[in-house]
Amino acid sequence: MKVLAILSLLVCSCYATTPTPLVIWHGMGDSCCNPLSMGSIIRLVEGQIPGIYTLSLKIGDTTTQDIMNGFLKPIPEQITMACEQIKADPNLANGFNAMGFSQGGQFLRAVAQQCDGIKMHNLISVGGQHQGVFGFPKCPNDLTFCDTLRDMLNKYAYNPTIQDHLVQAEYWHDPQHEDVYKSSNIFLPDLNNDVTVNEVYKQRLMSLNKFVMVKFTSDTMVQPIASEWFGFYAPGQAETVQSLQESDLYKNDQLGLKAMDQNGQLVFLATDGDHLQFTNEWFITNIIPYLQ
Amino acid sequence: MKVLAILSLLVCSCYATTPTPLVIWHGMGDSCCNPLSMGSIIRLVEGQIPGIYTLSLKIGDTTTQDIMNGFLKPIPEQITMACEQIKADPNLANGFNAMGFSQGGQFLRAVAQQCDGIKMHNLISVGGQHQGVFGFPKCPNDLTFCDTLRDMLNKYAYNPTIQDHLVQAEYWHDPQHEDVYKSSNIFLPDLNNDVTVNEVYKQRLMSLNKFVMVKFTSDTMVQPIASEWFGFYAPGQAETVQSLQESDLYKNDQLGLKAMDQNGQLVFLATDGDHLQFTNEWFITNIIPYLQ
Repeated sequence: MKVLAILSLLVCSCYATTPTPLVIWHGMGDSCCNPLSMGSIIRLVEGQIPGIYTLSLKIGDTTTQDIMNGFLKPIPEQITMACEQIKADPNLANGFNAMGFSQGGQFLRAVAQQCDGIKMHNLISVGGQHQGVFGFPKCPNDLTFCDTLRDMLNKYAYNPTIQDHLVQAEYWHDPQHEDVYKSSNIFLPDLNNDVTVNEVYKQRLMSLNKFVMVKFTSDTMVQPIASEWFGFYAPGQAETVQSLQESDLYKNDQLGLKAMDQNGQLVFLATDGDHLQFTNEWFITNIIPYLQ
Repeated sequence: MKVLAILSLLVCSCYATTPTPLVIWHGMGDSCCNPLSMGSIIRLVEGQIPGIYTLSLKIGDTTTQDIMNGFLKPIPEQITMACEQIKADPNLANGFNAMGFSQGGQFLRAVAQQCDGIKMHNLISVGGQHQGVFGFPKCPNDLTFCDTLRDMLNKYAYNPTIQDHLVQAEYWHDPQHEDVYKSSNIFLPDLNNDVTVNEVYKQRLMSLNKFVMVKFTSDTMVQPIASEWFGFYAPGQAETVQSLQESDLYKNDQLGLKAMDQNGQLVFLATDGDHLQFTNEWFITNIIPYLQ
């Protein structure tokens, strides 16, 4: 009996010390394997959770393809590729946490809702835009390019050719034309159960342990910032912002978010700073607990 | 007199508290404006040196162009563009420090040597390859791509078309064929005064206050790691590595590096870790003093 007890203790302690693996997805203009961005994040996580297995998703065969696909490959195809990578990795078979940066946040939510046969525990969205974006207040390019991009998105974002070839158009959300958005955007309205309620999406999202959303309160890249907490402009105009809790999506519980909120499954974190700007200390205090 | 003395004190203290501006150049696969890479570095520097002016070089009109140009735009053209940006910026007219990451390290040295009319104080090369690279021990892509890239570089790196269209070929240094390297590489042999001694290059490099080179002792991306301290394989083979001090370049002082070393202008820093992997604490302790 004593031997059995010791063995059982050993088994339990071994089990307890195997950290939950982590899947990460980078943001626009970044790649799986930039040593200073995702590399630093992985190193920070590994420093706090020794022995953790991490997978930084690469969409395409090369890091260059991965960068370009972040602009050009239709999001549904990217979600399929990510889903296949995760399912093919034996280290993730018993479940994993997922953490997405910027657009990687909504992409990993799509993986949670659309990828059959995976076990995602916690989903952490760091500056993700769950209701899309409408505008580039501080576009990190020259003025002519920014004006052209804004103009193009305002006029042509929902053109089928643009939808099939520009990733950012696939989460472009024009609140002044909600009907066009719902009928022509190929990614976000479907994902958010805005048109029809996909019960599978709802059940899969609700099966998460926690859905953590990080908002950057001084974000100059995302408009409106509320989208990082699943809020957006009230329909029909582009000035007044409403929170997730004020939206019909929540009130009608089309996606299960109301139930999740009431069950304590939604975590809303805010940090002062521009887009994706946080300190290691903030990350260790606020994010690491959800990765353990 | 008393008023004058107070005024003079104010002027002096104002002057003393204006930090030296900083120009940075990102590495391969990265861009000027990735919030998690160069953005984090700038934020770290600004936290330590409040009020510092920083310029993160962007090669091209957009961040996407900037990323692609890091693979495809001939280095001499990139140096010209960087030189023009720096000279056009009134905030840099009284001088600046420069810090390059990975290939940005050798590119900023080229700016120091080739850009007329600028005042660079300290040059910090973080993992730069000043004698080029020969091999990709851990190429961050799939195996087929890596094998193809290696094969292509081994066979065709010095082909004029490749030299004009692949940035990494322009610092590909084959020690088994030093003669071909010297005659056909369009960037590095000229920059290093390997073929003819360009006195202007030498004088400009020697006019730096400090030339700081950071080497990552567990670097799996750069071969040989010694290149980060201006060392390389001894000519004619690819096994034995010689330090800068053992090289003819140093002994003949073709580039002024021997004189700089003897004057205490060269700083060799080493940190354990893979390519560009360092902690904020290490950066604050070891790099910030050269930016003040």
